[in-house]
Amino acid sequence: MSSDPLETLEFECPVPIAGTDEILLGHGSGGKLTARLIEQTIEPALTNSILAELDDQALLPLRGESIAFTTDSFVVTPIFFPGGDIGELAVNGTVNDLAMGGATPKYLSLALILEEGFAIADLQRVLASIRRAADRAGVIVVTGDTKVVGRGSADKIFINTAGIGLPRPGTALSARRVRPGDAILLSGSIGDHGMAILTMREGLELEGRLASDTAPLNGLVDSMLDAYLDIHAMRDPTRGGLAATLVEISTRQRLGIEVDESAVPVTDAVRGACELLGLDPLFVANEGKLVAFVPEAGAEMVLAAMRKHCLGRDAVRIGTVTSTHPGLVVMRTPIGGSRALDLPFAEALPRIC
Amino acid sequence: MSSDPLETLEFECPVPIAGTDEILLGHGSGGKLTARLIEQTIEPALTNSILAELDDQALLPLRGESIAFTTDSFVVTPIFFPGGDIGELAVNGTVNDLAMGGATPKYLSLALILEEGFAIADLQRVLASIRRAADRAGVIVVTGDTKVVGRGSADKIFINTAGIGLPRPGTALSARRVRPGDAILLSGSIGDHGMAILTMREGLELEGRLASDTAPLNGLVDSMLDAYLDIHAMRDPTRGGLAATLVEISTRQRLGIEVDESAVPVTDAVRGACELLGLDPLFVANEGKLVAFVPEAGAEMVLAAMRKHCLGRDAVRIGTVTSTHPGLVVMRTPIGGSRALDLPFAEALPRIC
Repeated sequence: MSSDPLETLEFECPVPIAGTDEILLGHGSGGKLTARLIEQTIEPALTNSILAELDDQALLPLRGESIAFTTDSFVVTPIFFPGGDIGELAVNGTVNDLAMGGATPKYLSLALILEEGFAIADLQRVLASIRRAADRAGVIVVTGDTKVVGRGSADKIFINTAGIGLPRPGTALSARRVRPGDAILLSGSIGDHGMAILTMREGLELEGRLASDTAPLNGLVDSMLDAYLDIHAMRDPTRGGLAATLVEISTRQRLGIEVDESAVPVTDAVRGACELLGLDPLFVANEGKLVAFVPEAGAEMVLAAMRKHCLGRDAVRIGTVTSTHPGLVVMRTPIGGSRALDLPFAEALPRIC
Repeated sequence: MSSDPLETLEFECPVPIAGTDEILLGHGSGGKLTARLIEQTIEPALTNSILAELDDQALLPLRGESIAFTTDSFVVTPIFFPGGDIGELAVNGTVNDLAMGGATPKYLSLALILEEGFAIADLQRVLASIRRAADRAGVIVVTGDTKVVGRGSADKIFINTAGIGLPRPGTALSARRVRPGDAILLSGSIGDHGMAILTMREGLELEGRLASDTAPLNGLVDSMLDAYLDIHAMRDPTRGGLAATLVEISTRQRLGIEVDESAVPVTDAVRGACELLGLDPLFVANEGKLVAFVPEAGAEMVLAAMRKHCLGRDAVRIGTVTSTHPGLVVMRTPIGGSRALDLPFAEALPRIC
């Protein structure tokens, strides 16, 4: 390496074409680059019939029974934030992936990658938070692993949790079951987790308290299925926000989706922070919300059940699945217009979970 | 921050006591610091009856059946090395943890943490290796997750695999079942993986080829259990090497262990590299070897079965479990002496797996 500009002229560096030959931050953002990496690089390498379902959890046949299995790594920065920390997120994230498939979460594994110099007091705080979150969600951590890497080879702590759950008899929640006419229900306000992280990271002091919505959704899901067993699909809109969830379902299932934008709840604090940072709350991550696709016949029953649960008090119907414009999510705006929702190529919101 | 020595005198920095308030590299080495971190910090925070078993895998009751569950993160550097790569290691490591509990490995999850700038060609090479290793071991990757962190927040690629297996009927492999009189069998030479990594990392050119022994051990385990079902326990001596495995069993089960040091196979290449770097092969990591604790009545049958399998051709009996000197591993040296084996406080062999 040389800082002499003349010397560098003599050497023709190969120019990498951004997005084609190197991992970019955008590959982890939940946008188009993420989808492309998974569809073009990861899936083809590993392809099998279970992985191809691409739900948030896999359903595995085991001696005539069926179990649900999922994994998630957590690399959020900062690791402590208003409303939660990386430990709570690591439990709730995996619990929620199981719950979205209609499975009752039972067991978690816990794998820690620690950076040399990480304070053991902080580790204890994270572990205590993991324990509390696991108790709250009704799961237990049954196996674990700990690795340490040198300073600068990781950032404080990365956590992986894998989870095992038992499918609830009689349910078959899957994106494949979403049908034209399904009501789209949302359990509450969007953007809270992402904006709590971003404003803390940017050092913004904002009026109105911003806090992550991280929460275990399995109890809410139980209430919904108790009210109406034939819910077609559920998703927790994490990375990429509500937009990524709707676009994924619409694109993969070749269905149209219409959303009444004014029906989507956004708190004043989140709206204010989004305006300040030039973000659209539809694209901001949530960690304690769910979207449900419910046959019209059950929509009111499910909505009523959601509103009775503390994590679904603000539940609303935000839209409908249609057979028109397949592959397109159309937002009906408050002023009577409409726009098609598209994922950003690569959202610059790294390490939000 | 200032480089002026006078200015620093005015400020009393709190001096961290090494090993008590920060994570050290040694916390990940498989030595005493690792054991202390797990026993004093991680276990107490998460304590439950399944985790307390501290086997390499957990046995979970699920609707009257029982399944085995384990997790492991891989942070090895370099990611490509003679004899394997981080992808192959990530599959074999988790397959082996399941096999050591007598479970047939079935399903893996795969979670990637990628550093911005990581070459997609390298990712493809790792994924292809994961696929090959999974096919070889007879497991399938059924669910996954991908996160990206900024440059300098991780080192190229970290991989977590969690695994689910089915316990083989009639087996109950557990460290708790090891008894005085058990023969201790080792499946082959030790230190190959660790020395392949270390010599590559140090840029040493050595005579004799050093290559990682990474391999899936489930086939070998099947052959052993086919020969004699009542094997008491098995372990794959990874981090901390054969020494860590023997000391852990001896200490936790309050049993004596006697090992004939000259019986432990070490290749000339590994012995040479160890002498050059001042290391003892007993403490160097393996990724394709196992240690079995077998009642005397079955020892010869198991040994014969091991030798018929390609991964156990060099299997030997290295020692015996005793009721004398509980908690001590005694090595009988070739010159007729003996020494007690003790774990290093903190071995400086980070990121070996």
